[in-house]
Amino acid sequence: MTDKVRLAPVGLGRWAQVLARGAQRGQVIELHSCFTRDPEKRKAFQDRYGVPKAASSYEELLADPDVEGVVITTPNDTHRAVITQALEAGKAVYTDKPVAQTLEDALAIRAAVERTGGVFAVGHSARRLSGNRVIKQWIDDGTLGDVSMVEANFSNERGLELTPQTWRWYLDKTPGGPLIQLGVHHADNLQYLLGPVAAVSAVQRKLYTPSEVPDATMAILEFESGALGYLGCGWASPGIYQIRVQGTKQNLMYDLDFTHWDESHEADEWSSLVSQAYGQQERTSVELPSTDMFREQLEEFALAARGQGSVEVGVEEAIRALAIVHVAIESNRQGGRAVEVKPFLDAIEVPSS
Amino acid sequence: MTDKVRLAPVGLGRWAQVLARGAQRGQVIELHSCFTRDPEKRKAFQDRYGVPKAASSYEELLADPDVEGVVITTPNDTHRAVITQALEAGKAVYTDKPVAQTLEDALAIRAAVERTGGVFAVGHSARRLSGNRVIKQWIDDGTLGDVSMVEANFSNERGLELTPQTWRWYLDKTPGGPLIQLGVHHADNLQYLLGPVAAVSAVQRKLYTPSEVPDATMAILEFESGALGYLGCGWASPGIYQIRVQGTKQNLMYDLDFTHWDESHEADEWSSLVSQAYGQQERTSVELPSTDMFREQLEEFALAARGQGSVEVGVEEAIRALAIVHVAIESNRQGGRAVEVKPFLDAIEVPSS
Repeated sequence: MTDKVRLAPVGLGRWAQVLARGAQRGQVIELHSCFTRDPEKRKAFQDRYGVPKAASSYEELLADPDVEGVVITTPNDTHRAVITQALEAGKAVYTDKPVAQTLEDALAIRAAVERTGGVFAVGHSARRLSGNRVIKQWIDDGTLGDVSMVEANFSNERGLELTPQTWRWYLDKTPGGPLIQLGVHHADNLQYLLGPVAAVSAVQRKLYTPSEVPDATMAILEFESGALGYLGCGWASPGIYQIRVQGTKQNLMYDLDFTHWDESHEADEWSSLVSQAYGQQERTSVELPSTDMFREQLEEFALAARGQGSVEVGVEEAIRALAIVHVAIESNRQGGRAVEVKPFLDAIEVPSS
Repeated sequence: MTDKVRLAPVGLGRWAQVLARGAQRGQVIELHSCFTRDPEKRKAFQDRYGVPKAASSYEELLADPDVEGVVITTPNDTHRAVITQALEAGKAVYTDKPVAQTLEDALAIRAAVERTGGVFAVGHSARRLSGNRVIKQWIDDGTLGDVSMVEANFSNERGLELTPQTWRWYLDKTPGGPLIQLGVHHADNLQYLLGPVAAVSAVQRKLYTPSEVPDATMAILEFESGALGYLGCGWASPGIYQIRVQGTKQNLMYDLDFTHWDESHEADEWSSLVSQAYGQQERTSVELPSTDMFREQLEEFALAARGQGSVEVGVEEAIRALAIVHVAIESNRQGGRAVEVKPFLDAIEVPSS
């Protein structure tokens, strides 16, 4: 047995594989065991990623003392049960975003984190992209001046390719469609950059997807700082990942070619960050230090599981991001009027379990 | 006297000069006379652009039988009177956008156009930009597939530089701030591209301008087609002019470096139009045929004044664009809820004059 931190993927679909490749790009993590219901999928995952063990039940995985933490990529509506069970078994837990499907579930997860004192990380990886790190730095050090507007779009073609065999097809499993799957990243990014959102106005449409979910969402975010934010997410076009920030001294335009999203160690090479300064004719290309968001977040989590450092995105940040999704859905239901985030969150009943 | 169409600028500020340079890049138009109240400004304009005459009053200008049409760049709230007077004097009228400050004024101008049968053009030049022409073609010929979302931003630093000496400082002269000055261009562009807007939700903020007007506006447009549109306009950052269209087959991203806006014969050189096709890793740069929006719209107007052809943007298109501005202001007043365009327009009293 190595001295690497021993993690176990739970749910072994496409995203588990993206994360496995991220973990295996570094020397911090060993994928030690794994679990999904289908034995053939378990075997295939073991073979592909050289994972020594596979558990035949989730309980067996959680009972394995060699497993220090789990990496959860199961459907959103299973997160609460899967996460709570792992925390109560004393395992550190990383879950992919969104932290849960509903805010009720998210609050129950928070209660479990508090009750168990376990290490808990949520995969809001996108804030770690080099462009977002530079934008954050330029805001914090005053280079951008005062920020009045920020616009973000995260879209892809998923809605055109959904089948009834996938959970993302169904409205009760994927409320908001691309908003909860893609937009929730920007809901974290934008609050990471500009602080908490006070209110959200949103409009949603189901246009070209054969599935049940909306495939076009536009939301206006009113930040507590006074700045305005726009969040667009679609599921009926080729991929887009973009953020633009307008400051009194500079604009920054960040663009990542979404087709290179999965291989996060290469994403910066397919990104551009361009600044335009007040009073200047020419734009400037800003250098992007190399990052690897999937590897970095998993290594940070693994080390935290060993008591070394803490995770950047925990349950509070994740709830704040998920709240934007559900407040936007509520705003759309109310004809697009601005709905305040805090009263909406405060009105959610904290589950007793 | 040449055979060129003899036009007369009215209001000789910065924008009149941009248009004068546009007109003088071609061989169709002669700037034959001009008028503004200040005799020194008239003289300076005559000298600079080689204008043979200057009128000492607007009435004198309109009484000059050599003047075939007027080119109006006076403040928005003067448009109704200045336009109506010219139409009634039998002159063809070009006015800069917005057609008027209020919808009441715009409807009065429409009544004057109908009553006089005069040639009337509104300077929604931006739809003539090469990128917008290509986007329109790709939508119409099906290259983009079905369009679900379109996002546009037009912003500049004007709000940071306003002084109480300029009419744009005052809320009663520039309702909406950048929305009526810049956003109205995109209100025309987006309806040119995707047809009429059914409803608008908007949020506005006054953040960093010392003036009375908002300097950040975000609006969501619900098109009759079902597509969603976003329109952002700020007055508190360096310039931005951007449109992105998301289709099921392609995305198109159009970006124009705003610092090169005024010299419209060079704008295409400072623009990029990039496509990303479904299923393709690489983006493609789309060639932009050379255009010159200010020259082209003025020459089209001049020829129409001679009875040769008609203008592309008349009073109907201009009212449709202005309606977006005022419906957005109303939506902001109502807490951001979606306000329908048609009932809002229908409720405007048509002035009797």
